[in-house]
Order: sequence, then C-alpha cells, then structure tokens
Amino acid sequence: MTGKLSIDSMTAFCKSKGFVDANSEIYGGLAGFWDFGVNGVELKNNLKNLYWKDFVHKRDDVIGIDGTIITHPTVWEASGHVGGFGDALLECKKCNIRLRADHFIEDELKITVDGMSSKEIDEKIKEHNLKCPECGGEISEARHFSLMFSTQVGPVETTSSLAYLRPETAQVIFANFKKTSADARMKLPFGIMQTGKAFRNEIAPRNFLFRCREFEQMEIEYFVDPTKVKHCPHWDEVKDRKILVLSAKAQENDGESKEMTMKEMFDEGIVKSQWHCYWLIQINDWFVRYGVKQKNLRIREHVKDELSHYAAATMDIEYHFPFGWKELHGMADRTTFDLDQHTKFSGKNQGIFDEESKKAIIPHVIEPSQGVERAFLVFMFDAYNDDKERGNIVLKLHPKLAPYKVAVLPLTNKLDEKAREVYSFVNDEHNSFYDKSGSVGRRYARQDEIGTPFCVTVDFETLEDHSVTIRDRDSTKQIRVKVADLKDVIRKLVNGEIEFEKAGELIVK
Amino acid sequence: MTGKLSIDSMTAFCKSKGFVDANSEIYGGLAGFWDFGVNGVELKNNLKNLYWKDFVHKRDDVIGIDGTIITHPTVWEASGHVGGFGDALLECKKCNIRLRADHFIEDELKITVDGMSSKEIDEKIKEHNLKCPECGGEISEARHFSLMFSTQVGPVETTSSLAYLRPETAQVIFANFKKTSADARMKLPFGIMQTGKAFRNEIAPRNFLFRCREFEQMEIEYFVDPTKVKHCPHWDEVKDRKILVLSAKAQENDGESKEMTMKEMFDEGIVKSQWHCYWLIQINDWFVRYGVKQKNLRIREHVKDELSHYAAATMDIEYHFPFGWKELHGMADRTTFDLDQHTKFSGKNQGIFDEESKKAIIPHVIEPSQGVERAFLVFMFDAYNDDKERGNIVLKLHPKLAPYKVAVLPLTNKLDEKAREVYSFVNDEHNSFYDKSGSVGRRYARQDEIGTPFCVTVDFETLEDHSVTIRDRDSTKQIRVKVADLKDVIRKLVNGEIEFEKAGELIVK
Repeated sequence: MTGKLSIDSMTAFCKSKGFVDANSEIYGGLAGFWDFGVNGVELKNNLKNLYWKDFVHKRDDVIGIDGTIITHPTVWEASGHVGGFGDALLECKKCNIRLRADHFIEDELKITVDGMSSKEIDEKIKEHNLKCPECGGEISEARHFSLMFSTQVGPVETTSSLAYLRPETAQVIFANFKKTSADARMKLPFGIMQTGKAFRNEIAPRNFLFRCREFEQMEIEYFVDPTKVKHCPHWDEVKDRKILVLSAKAQENDGESKEMTMKEMFDEGIVKSQWHCYWLIQINDWFVRYGVKQKNLRIREHVKDELSHYAAATMDIEYHFPFGWKELHGMADRTTFDLDQHTKFSGKNQGIFDEESKKAIIPHVIEPSQGVERAFLVFMFDAYNDDKERGNIVLKLHPKLAPYKVAVLPLTNKLDEKAREVYSFVNDEHNSFYDKSGSVGRRYARQDEIGTPFCVTVDFETLEDHSVTIRDRDSTKQIRVKVADLKDVIRKLVNGEIEFEKAGELIVK
Repeated sequence: MTGKLSIDSMTAFCKSKGFVDANSEIYGGLAGFWDFGVNGVELKNNLKNLYWKDFVHKRDDVIGIDGTIITHPTVWEASGHVGGFGDALLECKKCNIRLRADHFIEDELKITVDGMSSKEIDEKIKEHNLKCPECGGEISEARHFSLMFSTQVGPVETTSSLAYLRPETAQVIFANFKKTSADARMKLPFGIMQTGKAFRNEIAPRNFLFRCREFEQMEIEYFVDPTKVKHCPHWDEVKDRKILVLSAKAQENDGESKEMTMKEMFDEGIVKSQWHCYWLIQINDWFVRYGVKQKNLRIREHVKDELSHYAAATMDIEYHFPFGWKELHGMADRTTFDLDQHTKFSGKNQGIFDEESKKAIIPHVIEPSQGVERAFLVFMFDAYNDDKERGNIVLKLHPKLAPYKVAVLPLTNKLDEKAREVYSFVNDEHNSFYDKSGSVGRRYARQDEIGTPFCVTVDFETLEDHSVTIRDRDSTKQIRVKVADLKDVIRKLVNGEIEFEKAGELIVK
C-alpha cells in the first residue's frame, strides 16, 4: 500500500480510530506534539515492550537502564551538543518568518542538501535569488539554531541552573556506562539499552509522527573491545545476507541503490566493522519479523558531509515512506568518541577493566538507535489494507503489536452473560475487547480497523457445548474451539506456535 | 523492617545493587534527579506494567492514553497551574540561600505546616525570631515560587512560545477526555489512565526517591455521572472494609488515627462519595497484594487549609516511611472542576452525551493518583529483609515485581553448556539471569539481594534425568522438576496458581 496512502490520509486514519491525535486538540493543537489515544497507546506500549524483550531480556549480552530526561548539563558539553547540535535557520527580513534552511532549499530547488554548510546555503540563496515563500521578502544569512530545549532547575535562575531536556537518550547511557557495567558484571562485548523520551526543538516539525518535537527513542549502545571491532563472532550468520544499499559513492555520482551482501559492504569499506553489519541485520530482521515489508527497507550510507563529528560511519535503515525514502533507524559507528569525551570532562577514566591486558580500555561503540514514533508509523503503513471486498480497512498488525489480541462478541444480547464470562476468562491473560453493539459483521469490521487479530463469537451452541468460534482477521477463516482451551490457543496463535487452521476445527474456509 | 532501615541506608542499598543512583553521578549528580540501573529499570517497568494490566487491561471500564510532556500552555491556565501551582519560598537576606518555607518552619519548630498561608509563615518567623540556618542572617518574607519547569517551543522566543513541562499527567487526560471517550465509545462510569513523566521544580528535593524533580505518575481519572456520584454499584464489596484513618477532625484536635469502615467514613462525611471509598480500597488492596504490609498503610484526610482549590475532599494513602507517615498515593474528589474549566477555556462543551437525559453532562471525577517512584520505594522497604542466619539481605519482592524471575546456575563450569540450554529455554518466557561465577551459596546470596524468587540449579543429574532443582528465595526450600515443565511451573509460581512445595518433588525442606 505504501506510495498509495499519503501521510495526510494516514494522519486522518490515526485520528479517526483512536490511535494518534494532535496534543491538546481542543486548544488547536501544538505543532510537533502528538498524543496517543486509546488504541495508539496499546500499540506503542506493545512495540516498546517487544523491542525491550527481544533485545534486552532475550539476549544475555544486553542490559537496560532508565535515566532522566533533564540531565546534568555537563553531559551535553562533553557530548558536543551544547553549541554543536542545531540546524541552520533563515529569517525573512520583511515578515520575520523563520525557516529551516535545508527544508527551504530542498523545497525551492528540489535538491538534496544533507550536510550543506551555512556558507553553501547562503551561496545557493544568492545564486538562485531565493525569496521568502510567504511574502517575497529578502532572506537573511543562515545562522545556527540550537535544537535543545532548555529550562532552569532550582529556585535561583543563574547560568549554573541552566539545564537541557535530553535531545537523545544515548548520552545518559554513556554517562552511566562504568557503573552499569560494574553493577551487572558485564564483559565486552555487551550493550546497554534505554527507552525514553527525547526532545528536539525542530524549526519545522512535519510529516505527522515522522518529525516531532517530543518523541521516544529506543537506543542500544553496543560496546566492543576496540582491538576486536572488525571481527564479529556472529559474522557467519550475517555475511551472506543481501540488502538494498545506497552507498555514499552512489549518492555522489547520482547512482542507484543496489543489493549488496554484508561481506561486500565490509570489504568495500562502507562499514568499518563486522559488528556494524551484524546489528544492521538484527534491526532489519526485527522490523520484517513484525510486519514491515523487506522491499520497503534499504540501507543508506551517510555521505561525508553529513557524517556526525563522532561517527566513523553511519548507516540509516530507510523506509519507503509516501514522501520518499527516509530514515527509520540510525546506526552510527561512534568509535570511542563519547566515552573519551566523558573521561575528559569528568576527569575519571570511563574505561572498563580488561582481564587480558590488565588495564582499563575505552570500548568502541556501535549504536542501533530507534525512534518509537517512526517505528509506529512504519508498522501502521505496512499493516494498512483497504479491503474493497470486505468494504473496510483491515489493519494487519502482527498479533504481538495489535492493541487487542481478542474481541469477544455475543451473537445476540441474550448471550451477554455467557459472553462476559468468556471475556473475563480470556482477558485475564490477553488484552481483550468486549463488544455487543451492532451486527456481527459491523463488529468484525470495527476490529479489522484497529487490527484485532482474533474475534471470538459466543453463540447459542456455546451454552450447550462450551465452545466458541474464532475468526481470523486476515483470512476471515473460522475455527471452533473449547472455551477452556481459549487462553492457550490464543497464546500459541499470538506467539506463532501454531497455524490458525490447525488450532481448532475449521468451520469456515 | 520499616522504621529500622533509614532512608539513607535504603539509598546506599539501591546504589550498591544496581537499582538507583544519582543522575550523572560522574559529574557529581543533579539534585532531585535519579537514574534507574540494571535492576531498577526492570522493577520499575514491572511495577508500571502491572498497574496498567490490573487497572486498564483487566477492567473493561478503564482505558489508557499517552500524551505529551510539553503540553499546550492553555491547558495549564485552565487547570489553574499557571500562577497557582507553587510553594512559598524564603530567602536569606544575607547569604541569599533560598528555602522552602514549609520545610524550614517544620525543621525549626517541629510542627506541621500543611496549608499554612504566606502570611501565617511570615508571622511564625517573626514570632519565633527564626534566622537563616546557614549564616544566621535575616529571613525575607515568603513569596510564591512556581513549581512548573518552563521552556520555549519553536524558533522564535516570545511569550507565545512559552510552554511548560507538565507537573501532572491528569490534565492531559482532561484535555483528551471528550475525544477519548468517543473513540472508545465509553459510557459513564468509566476511567482513563495515563502513565508518564511529570516535572516539578522542587525547591528542596529530598528523601531519595520520595521527592524528585523528575518523576513518573500513574493517574486514573474516573468519571461518574454527577447525579449518581454518591452511590457506587460495588458498595457492598467495600463498605465493611476497615482501614486505619486519620481524619481532619483528629488532626485539628491532636487526635490519633483509628480503624474505620468505609461506611463510617461515608456516613461521617469524611468522603462525599461511595466511589471515593471504592477506589481507596482498590488501591490499598493493590499495594497489599504485591507485598506492602497493611500495618504500614493508612488513610489521611486533607485538612481544610491544605485542600486544593479543585477538590471537594482528598484522601492520601500514607505509608509509614522511616521519616514518618507520608503520602504514597493521593486520591482527590475533583468534582467537575477540571472539565468545567476546559469547557470554559476551549469554548467547547466537554460533557459526554447522556442517553437518559439526552444532553451533554460534565462528569464528576475521582482521581487515584500514584507516583511510580514512591511505589517503587515502598515495595523496596517492605521487601527488604536483613537475614542474619543467611548472612545476606533477602529482598522479598513479589515475583511479578522482581527484576528477574529465575536465575540459572550450573553447579560447576563443566555444566555450562547444558545450563545455557536450560537458560535459553526458560528465558524465552521469563526474564532470567545466568550466573556461573563463584560458589552456589554466593550465587544464591546475589540473587536474594536483588529479589530473584527462583534459582534453578543444573547439576550432573540433569544430564541423566533432564530435571533441575528450583530453590525458593523466601523459604530456601528446594524442589526437583523436569526441564520440559520449567516454563509452565515458573509461570504458575509467578502467577500464584500453585504453591511452591506442590510444584515438584520436595527435596530440601
């Protein structure tokens, strides 16, 4: 469906079905801030919990922490964010509207400006004689605008009480690295993950959840012995995996993306470390496992000019949004930059004791960094199906992501009592929805639209034989199972341990 | 143990065991900001997920949302927070130290000052000739200090770009009330819950997690038809329940708390609504179910002077902290105040359509409001046991709250491969810890200290009979079970569906 459904249509769908709406919509909304509604909060929580379970709980080499949003200001000096983290800003000299320079140039000239310097921006404006899009006035020279939100902590307003809302969760991991690794007695290689809010005062938030001012991140910082960074023990599992790649070289020569193996990426020097490839595959596969189409994903190498000061190489996992290929996941090879900086700024060695060399070593970092809202959006796009035959939208979310696993529907109101009994039983384990209003067809459609994978219908036979019908969202097939088995059957279906048709007696093909 | 372990000892314990540490400890910390470590994040997540599951998923009359932290500024004007939400602040005229007035008076005069006005504070200072505790200088008159953190949104700094970090999650629920209730097709009575960060620029953060500047809330706003607020359909389930209550009357007359039934509280007019009693019991029981001792809980009625402007009555559920009885949970009867205000400020009726009267009615609100950090702290206090016989701390957390459900321990390193197999199998469902270093006794102690309820030991017999030993944290009893049954046995033990001794063959009593 991607490419067919516009971002505006997706926004309207999310608003109408209780997924997402503008913050404080009754007051006209607040640009770049979105609230998750009754269904959206469940999908978002499932997404975050699943990522945590798969990458923290299921791996014994990744642990978690949860630090604060307002963080010690020195953290952001060490990281380079103070003074460094911002966008080029333009202002109309006549009407004073402020514009994000790269977006302005992109919109006006239809070119890519990633990594363009302020000087180059000024030259482009001069060269093409660009004017204010609102009033036609003259445009100022580009100046730096910090993307960090600031505030004052404590009862005295001084420069020493100035603090920032974290623009990324990563630095909180680095600042806690030494203590956390000691607490958990970790040995290299290992990772630390954090999930939580981050804030960026975007000049021009746009494209719905794609670019928000307040958003959530799920970041893993994976620490590797710097002498072993090129060699990953899992290399054999990933080296022959092929993925669509847009290299920096191709971008510089107006070339196309092409399928490459991880081994080719490593051998050609696009990535500097096998660990980088390993993590690209883990993240790619995570998205595909839970419903993103492989054809909508590609890897894009950052070109030299856009590469951050801390990175030896950065790969974006991009998704084919209706507004083009854009970053879904960013994965930087951060080298030892951050821990070196925190060593310098704190005056304390942030290295980890290495038993082989008997000294503290600063590990090398690969960073799989995920925005929750972008993941949410991508799962919505690839789940969205306008089923003309059924006459309603079918949101084919993976059962683990779906807000509700089960809807319990009495065939008629007379079966309300029995159906509530079934609901209570199954809801004890699986988040369930009870609905008795409207025709069964209308109720199926309502569940299709919010992605509920299984509808359980209680009919008059249920009173006799204690069995119910389960209807599969995607195939509309129906099976009959005993109420007593319902919790187990749903668990196995959600976990993908059994096929739907084999989970009970098939009654509607 | 409460009353024996000081807050400082608990802080030290949390720091040493990977639960909680000062934010950015490598930079000297940031007052009022705490980071959750490798074990703390798991306990905190379990606590939040459990509250959500019990109050949102398991109830069909409560739904959830997740709104932003930076919220439309008009929300805070409507709520009365702008200008109204703050503390009285004192300043030393000599050394300029700033003091929170109520804490200062409490510390100096050993009296309770809840609800004391600025004028009364000034009078107390004059009457007792109080001086600066730091330098002996003269103290200024009390002035209002806003507890809201503010920031600027967007590229232009003007008053119109001023925004606040939410000081409570409640208002985001009220601002979303109408849309959310329509999305979910809810009928009164019903609740909306939100979990998320809130920020208060406390003048004097203190007592570890008890009073932070950044914290999390789990708030339920429960909406009731205002004509039916006195009568709760669940009244029979709660009316005879007895709880320790400190009434406003007792506080005014230096009286003691005493056991009262909910019916007595309602009949004596301490609460104005049966729904208020109903929710007090739900929350009290939730804490007791997961390990808080009933004797450490009481209900305290707010005295008239401390009652918020929006509340008809407020009951705190207090916990007996080492520093006295203090608020663990706040439950206000907010009447129709907030939705009336948002109706006024938005110019849109925030009522819900009532099918009986055929008109929009503004519901009455009971608000069970919980801070996550305080719940965390209370569970830690009541779980903490210094077991002199074992020679180590045993953290008797409820299995659903414990960071890890299972630790898998090979008896010797030769069993590493088999033990890892067992670990992978059980870890697929239950968050598990693998530990092969040190004696088994030492490893048991480590798990006791972080609250892991079950230790699974893999021994040489495991290779023969595919069974393992499970050791119970609290009783140290041991049973033998088949590896194949391990996931099911642990699930049933965690859910409290079977007793430990009956879950396998008892081998150590």
